[in-house]
Amino acid sequence: MATVLGIDPGSRFTGWGIVRANDNELHHIAHGVIKLGDKAMELRLREIYIGVSDLISDNEIDRFAIETSFVSDNPQTAIKLGQARGVAIAAAAVLDLPVAEYAPREIKLATVGSGRATKEQIQYMVKVLLNLKDAPNTDSADALAVAICDLHAKRYQSSIDRGLRPR
Amino acid sequence: MATVLGIDPGSRFTGWGIVRANDNELHHIAHGVIKLGDKAMELRLREIYIGVSDLISDNEIDRFAIETSFVSDNPQTAIKLGQARGVAIAAAAVLDLPVAEYAPREIKLATVGSGRATKEQIQYMVKVLLNLKDAPNTDSADALAVAICDLHAKRYQSSIDRGLRPR
Repeated sequence: MATVLGIDPGSRFTGWGIVRANDNELHHIAHGVIKLGDKAMELRLREIYIGVSDLISDNEIDRFAIETSFVSDNPQTAIKLGQARGVAIAAAAVLDLPVAEYAPREIKLATVGSGRATKEQIQYMVKVLLNLKDAPNTDSADALAVAICDLHAKRYQSSIDRGLRPR
Repeated sequence: MATVLGIDPGSRFTGWGIVRANDNELHHIAHGVIKLGDKAMELRLREIYIGVSDLISDNEIDRFAIETSFVSDNPQTAIKLGQARGVAIAAAAVLDLPVAEYAPREIKLATVGSGRATKEQIQYMVKVLLNLKDAPNTDSADALAVAICDLHAKRYQSSIDRGLRPR
């Protein structure tokens, strides 16, 4: 059994999702969005740090997963995203969680089965895979998707470690 | 009296400097560099967070100061710098310190007296202003310079608040 916190960082909305796997079964634990609004930058970063720390402490999280950094053409956007991303990662690393990064293509493959999936397809497949009544909002869906991707990747890895072919 | 921690963030070397002002006199408290080496990114961010938190707790810091984000043409560099920068700011904000940002030009004006000063001129003037035996390394000198800039800016502001013309 493993419980993974996935994060979709942003300087205005930071999505999060928690997924647990028992053997091959995925279980949705919770998801949500840390809404950062128009506060001063340092107060937003403070909230991301405290929010992620609390999610980890309150939910017995084993691993932390995040999308590899999205490359923006705009360096100011890249700095802002980097700040939010770095703070979320630091919150996990200070609590000694393993941190894994996945490329958008890997995340899409693990959830939708195609590296070119749309946002809507990810939302839909996250709903199906986790047996949810409604599709989560896009920030939470992306966070749940990266958590699912991590659980897939680690299952695959542990099959290899045991000398089995992945199913 | 006020004690300011200045930070010059980087993903390989994060410079820091602590300066105290009593009335108009500047006192050097300490400076150094958090060396991050080639560790995994999350372990570097962890070290920045813990390093900055410890500096604040151990030195009765009143305020935190940092240069406004340097705009790189390379978005990957911007993300990495943003990550280091965000983590240092979050460490201060979680401990409820006021955070101030200064443009490179303001920092150069406050230390060297010219908005176009070189790295070497900053190192030299930081040494003179703080009465140091040797010039600090560039990362620490930049961190001390932003702390000096904050003490200048706040002195100026408090003169205005008291209805006095700044000297």
